[in-house]
Amino acid sequence: MKSKFKTIGLWGQLNASNVAGPAADIGTHLGKLGIDVLLQEQAGIPDTLAAIPRLPEAELASKADLIVAIGGDGTLLHAARAAASDTVALLGVNLGRLGFLTDVRPEHMLEIIDAILAGDYIEETRIMLEARLEGPEHSGRSLLALNDVTTKVGNPAHMQDFLTWVDGDYVNTHGGDGLIVATATGSTAYALSCGGPIIQPTVDALVIVPICPHTLSDRPLVIPATSRVEVRAQTRFGDTAEVNCDGEALGELGTEDKLTITVAKDTVTLLHPQGYDYYELLRSKLSWGHSERSARRPDGR
Amino acid sequence: MKSKFKTIGLWGQLNASNVAGPAADIGTHLGKLGIDVLLQEQAGIPDTLAAIPRLPEAELASKADLIVAIGGDGTLLHAARAAASDTVALLGVNLGRLGFLTDVRPEHMLEIIDAILAGDYIEETRIMLEARLEGPEHSGRSLLALNDVTTKVGNPAHMQDFLTWVDGDYVNTHGGDGLIVATATGSTAYALSCGGPIIQPTVDALVIVPICPHTLSDRPLVIPATSRVEVRAQTRFGDTAEVNCDGEALGELGTEDKLTITVAKDTVTLLHPQGYDYYELLRSKLSWGHSERSARRPDGR
Amino acid sequence: MKSKFKTIGLWGQLNASNVAGPAADIGTHLGKLGIDVLLQEQAGIPDTLAAIPRLPEAELASKADLIVAIGGDGTLLHAARAAASDTVALLGVNLGRLGFLTDVRPEHMLEIIDAILAGDYIEETRIMLEARLEGPEHSGRSLLALNDVTTKVGNPAHMQDFLTWVDGDYVNTHGGDGLIVATATGSTAYALSCGGPIIQPTVDALVIVPICPHTLSDRPLVIPATSRVEVRAQTRFGDTAEVNCDGEALGELGTEDKLTITVAKDTVTLLHPQGYDYYELLRSKLSWGHSERSARRPDGR
Amino acid sequence: MKSKFKTIGLWGQLNASNVAGPAADIGTHLGKLGIDVLLQEQAGIPDTLAAIPRLPEAELASKADLIVAIGGDGTLLHAARAAASDTVALLGVNLGRLGFLTDVRPEHMLEIIDAILAGDYIEETRIMLEARLEGPEHSGRSLLALNDVTTKVGNPAHMQDFLTWVDGDYVNTHGGDGLIVATATGSTAYALSCGGPIIQPTVDALVIVPICPHTLSDRPLVIPATSRVEVRAQTRFGDTAEVNCDGEALGELGTEDKLTITVAKDTVTLLHPQGYDYYELLRSKLSWGHSERSARRPDGR
Repeated sequence: MKSKFKTIGLWGQLNASNVAGPAADIGTHLGKLGIDVLLQEQAGIPDTLAAIPRLPEAELASKADLIVAIGGDGTLLHAARAAASDTVALLGVNLGRLGFLTDVRPEHMLEIIDAILAGDYIEETRIMLEARLEGPEHSGRSLLALNDVTTKVGNPAHMQDFLTWVDGDYVNTHGGDGLIVATATGSTAYALSCGGPIIQPTVDALVIVPICPHTLSDRPLVIPATSRVEVRAQTRFGDTAEVNCDGEALGELGTEDKLTITVAKDTVTLLHPQGYDYYELLRSKLSWGHSERSARRPDGR
Repeated sequence: MKSKFKTIGLWGQLNASNVAGPAADIGTHLGKLGIDVLLQEQAGIPDTLAAIPRLPEAELASKADLIVAIGGDGTLLHAARAAASDTVALLGVNLGRLGFLTDVRPEHMLEIIDAILAGDYIEETRIMLEARLEGPEHSGRSLLALNDVTTKVGNPAHMQDFLTWVDGDYVNTHGGDGLIVATATGSTAYALSCGGPIIQPTVDALVIVPICPHTLSDRPLVIPATSRVEVRAQTRFGDTAEVNCDGEALGELGTEDKLTITVAKDTVTLLHPQGYDYYELLRSKLSWGHSERSARRPDGR
Repeated sequence: MKSKFKTIGLWGQLNASNVAGPAADIGTHLGKLGIDVLLQEQAGIPDTLAAIPRLPEAELASKADLIVAIGGDGTLLHAARAAASDTVALLGVNLGRLGFLTDVRPEHMLEIIDAILAGDYIEETRIMLEARLEGPEHSGRSLLALNDVTTKVGNPAHMQDFLTWVDGDYVNTHGGDGLIVATATGSTAYALSCGGPIIQPTVDALVIVPICPHTLSDRPLVIPATSRVEVRAQTRFGDTAEVNCDGEALGELGTEDKLTITVAKDTVTLLHPQGYDYYELLRSKLSWGHSERSARRPDGR
Repeated sequence: MKSKFKTIGLWGQLNASNVAGPAADIGTHLGKLGIDVLLQEQAGIPDTLAAIPRLPEAELASKADLIVAIGGDGTLLHAARAAASDTVALLGVNLGRLGFLTDVRPEHMLEIIDAILAGDYIEETRIMLEARLEGPEHSGRSLLALNDVTTKVGNPAHMQDFLTWVDGDYVNTHGGDGLIVATATGSTAYALSCGGPIIQPTVDALVIVPICPHTLSDRPLVIPATSRVEVRAQTRFGDTAEVNCDGEALGELGTEDKLTITVAKDTVTLLHPQGYDYYELLRSKLSWGHSERSARRPDGR
């Protein structure tokens, strides 16, 4: 079999037995096909995976043509941030209920991997955000996010004011628990719980979603994906605001600091099995409608 | 003065005294400058405007280089639909509180018109929607909308099911009071009252907003502006659904009918005075924040 | 068997086969037990039910000690309005998914009816609303509602202003699609789709919920159940507002009219099988949580 | 003047000049009337107040017949918690925009205090919540809250599961940022930002409001004021949840702990000037409607 995917990395909590099992199955299957397999280096990898070479995250991402993330959406989010600067594609195997990003069930994973090796798949490019903190105590550290960058009050008893600018234009002073800047990918994650809209992934847009805003008319704002969003915090009582990228801490946003969020130059390539249907995923994940109603087509048949 | 606007049409309820006054002032002012002025033909135009030539809507839109809509956002929406197929620009004078589309106050209108004649203005292009009804009892009638196309239950005591497709892909069966398909322009109108996000006008997107949906996870969905949205109604008890474009009736959507919504080939050109600031308009219209907070800039000064 | 329920009425669309079947089963079962059975008079009652005496709604409600409503929540709502002035109890058999009010499945209905005859059941009293329309063209007609009284714009293209008073105190002028006044019972019906809270049935309160309000801070208002709510409409363009009680038309609310909503003097008595759990019903109907999580008790076991 | 208020305490940040000024004015005014005046003991009380005796919070609350809280709603909330076990009444002077609880402006405070001394006022009783933390590392510490008890994730990057019981019945497992249990008084505070309803203060109810819930159908739940609410946290990643009462830290809710919230046995007595109108306060604070519309009465005049 001549596939463009000659080296495949296995990603996830490989020391957990429910992850190690599927990983070993994939490893064995790929080995028989003559594909090079690599593991994400970590402590506690079990014996069943001992024969597969291990590499640190960054090296694995640069060597592999395809990373199979095994776990849930969080596992794939992590792999995506690690792999962003490389040309590696990502496939997600979900061990629980199907995720928005991990849409392969373990029971179908080997046949889907075979189809992918045969070139039979849907490829999708998703943008990422880059968040950068600048200020007296920050060295301009930046992180990537596939879902969202959140800025939230550090003290759960207090609200704060968050000032926003889009492309240098002042937008608003949002009083409340914080702010989310989400991609279309992240629009179905935390942003949805905070009242944000669902953004179909091919829309070239971001959304700024205030978290529990003090002003009831402070509503989610959809802006072009090319926007530069700047955030400043007006903290009180010595509080700080905390910035997270897909749940990974970037740092604290103090009153002298500025958070800048832009689209990252790197993108993520997601692979889906044939038949992937974004709206079907929405219907399933959000318990929409009923299958008997969905059979009808727009031409009335 | 050599302006590109040689013929200017005055649009609005000219038989209302609060409209006729500003219209007469503009007419006199433009007459002195040697600009041709035209009125939207209608009953009851008062004597103060008797000297200005009148034309039916469509002719006025095709003859004029600029239409000044006097009234509120509803007046400009109407003018926009009438003028869409022409190259005429639109300026809105608001007689009440500033609108999202009509951002000139009567007290500044003459100086702003002078600035516009001198080429000193901001020009903005907004997309429109085209809605078409097809079915056994429809001849494929279509209407334009600058804000939104709404499909709502005709009987306020009942809910109905509305099935949606985007580019031929089935999306959902929305049970409830109806559906809104809105442009970015319309995102701050009815769609906002139904839980939709604010969409900045340069975002190339539409939003489908369910009205009082039966399913609580049936949330607003942002889709590319190039999408083709199809809607079918599953009415019960002999009910019908009613389709409106910016509040103008398109017709009834029965169980055998299909409503198709796409971006119209024609766009609208809005003129704004220099200093126009979309976010300032949002802050003002939505009573956001406080001016003393807005002085600070993203560079911290 | 000595039961307090000596005469039982069967209520629902008895001409529909999926209703007639369970009705016949209940009728046969009760007949063997020596209970008097009555049917709601209507056209098209099938032969299988021909042997059971029929009475008009009002007579049946006054003769029966218990009404078994077969269908869905709508069937029971109708029976409740008809039976309010009588001392008859209500039991709901749901032919589809369990309803909030109809919590007996057909497969368990005979054993549950046996338990009820044996005095083994949970009895619950629910309040009803009484809505009265007064004005030049109204004769003070009133209707009851177990769920809600809705006042909505008659023309789906327009919004209107609705003025509210509680116990004579002016509350607000709600611009939008209309207003709901709901009981706790109705809080999980239409009011929930419009952003209202869930009100546990033992709370002595009503809720006023604006429908798609123009003002984003116009939020649901919970008031004492003893309140007198008055509503007036400021219609425009010759529109009228339509008032419905549990979906049954009361009449039109014109600019000269007043709608008064108070708690009705009569209540409804609902019977539930032992084990009835309001919160379990909420979890099931609203797809909350997961059963594996619910096992844990507040004492930590 | 024979008033039931013979000893009046002044409460607030008396070391801030904008508070000390009005406090001195009230002190001087009351002194002339022969009323005993007391200050809340604290550091930095300026010379203008030096002549007035000072007492620690608890002693002042037990000695005074009336506490005048000067500042904002937060100041009055603090005074209410301190004064709950005493029979002292509370009056709030607001130095900024009128608050929900502090409805006296400085420019009217002396005349309103005179009216109150003359017995000319509106008296209102509000319930408080008592929150108690129990668990291996808690000694059953409890705190009072006039507005709300909040339980929120300590780590802003994570969500947690919060299990709730009402009167021993399991309600739900709320995944998200946390939970609010609010009184009617608190319904217009943080709970409103999280989607809760407005609860009129004479309604005998509490509301449980999930904060940014993972499940979109996890909606605010109104329960009787007599309810016993129990909350447990299922924390992950070693996180803890933090419990606050009106913003004052009660402690951490770990996986082995239980938070119990009931109505406190003590209540708060608020005094309002004659003319106090709850709905007018709502309209003002929430920027509802327009005054020209509010003139009309339910009798149509």
